[in-house]
Amino acid sequence: MKTNTNEIVYGFNSVMNILTGKRVPTKVLIMNNHHEPKITSICKEKGIYVESVDRHVLDRLSNNRNHQGVLAYVPPYEYGTLEDLINDLNKKNDALILILDGIEDPNNFGSLIRSSACLGIDGILISKNHQVQLTPTVSKVSTGGEEHIRIYQVSNIAQSLIRLKKNGLWIVASDGSADRDYDEVNYKGKIGIVVGSEGKGISPLILKTSDFIVKIPMEGKITSFNAAVAGAILLTQAMNYKRRNK
Amino acid sequence: MKTNTNEIVYGFNSVMNILTGKRVPTKVLIMNNHHEPKITSICKEKGIYVESVDRHVLDRLSNNRNHQGVLAYVPPYEYGTLEDLINDLNKKNDALILILDGIEDPNNFGSLIRSSACLGIDGILISKNHQVQLTPTVSKVSTGGEEHIRIYQVSNIAQSLIRLKKNGLWIVASDGSADRDYDEVNYKGKIGIVVGSEGKGISPLILKTSDFIVKIPMEGKITSFNAAVAGAILLTQAMNYKRRNK
Repeated sequence: MKTNTNEIVYGFNSVMNILTGKRVPTKVLIMNNHHEPKITSICKEKGIYVESVDRHVLDRLSNNRNHQGVLAYVPPYEYGTLEDLINDLNKKNDALILILDGIEDPNNFGSLIRSSACLGIDGILISKNHQVQLTPTVSKVSTGGEEHIRIYQVSNIAQSLIRLKKNGLWIVASDGSADRDYDEVNYKGKIGIVVGSEGKGISPLILKTSDFIVKIPMEGKITSFNAAVAGAILLTQAMNYKRRNK
Repeated sequence: MKTNTNEIVYGFNSVMNILTGKRVPTKVLIMNNHHEPKITSICKEKGIYVESVDRHVLDRLSNNRNHQGVLAYVPPYEYGTLEDLINDLNKKNDALILILDGIEDPNNFGSLIRSSACLGIDGILISKNHQVQLTPTVSKVSTGGEEHIRIYQVSNIAQSLIRLKKNGLWIVASDGSADRDYDEVNYKGKIGIVVGSEGKGISPLILKTSDFIVKIPMEGKITSFNAAVAGAILLTQAMNYKRRNK
């Protein structure tokens, strides 16, 4: 039984969110003697094949991660393109996009997808290179959030930003060189928020392309937030601003 | 060489933050042929013994985690008590405390310590039970933030909150039953922000004890933030409020 072309998603929340999302799993595996009434009933309703397997099968397929007794095979994720993003933005007067400049840690990428899907932002832009893609670990941490938000994949973030700016996107980047606090920006209209990589932050070229450079004020001895935390704080602020200034 | 009474901290940022914090390491291990000029120079200055070891020693001591070639033995962390917290609060007119109601994931606890140490809040209150303590994994994720913030450990959070309230602490909890948004609260004075456990949220008894129950508005399909992300958003909001309303 070849499943090469399919991706694997495991963990209760992740499988549940997959089942209510866009991609229809080709098969769901549930551990022997493990009851998942919610998952089995949705699978029955949608005609998704469910198979009982030994624990060691799930352990192996999930690389011994915390699969919680459930795993789904799903068709490959279909990333949007830069053209898709431009088209999607052209249909809107107001939007919020998260732009990742090289996130390497699957926990951080998963966490950013989850936060983005919670807030209901309009999409995430990632690069094909120097960026972790949608792996099973990412889907576990994101709790399947990628099913509810569009992820656009491009070859080069800096070049894409130049085109997006011409199409009306304002770029807000978070960096130590900031001249203003993150809550002193007008987040109305179409906004892209850039989060930099864990080690290197945002690359100089992208900083140069940005319209606003902001910082989250900190008074403590540790000098930088985790990338996923910083991203969530900025996105929440932007969403709140939009909500309060409609 | 017995090191039972010592704790282990590994990873570049964590060891660096330990070296600038309260606890003085008894020894620092650096991988053979791995150069750490910053760490070795601080150790020399402070008279801390540095030993070169094979990679497999660090792999083993860190349980094969990402130690980045450096590891420190540090004396056990000294948690504050409830009495300490009350004394510390009595010296202040304004304070922000993070209260954890049973965080089980070391990544979440580490992330919350890091965010707290970034923001420079006044302390973290945890329970001895149903709560992950300061393990090496927590210290790695926190980047050693616990050296720059006081962590108070109590037997029972709910009972402690009753005493803290009598001592002037206002309790803000985040829960789906909220009647207001998290940015509609007056965070002046002495504030304790409660973050609930990953699975169960905040326990009913603690919710009943809380003065305000708030929510972070979400418009997406995924219905809950990761606990560490939610905590960081609330703490950042409270610190910003205090800064803007001095």
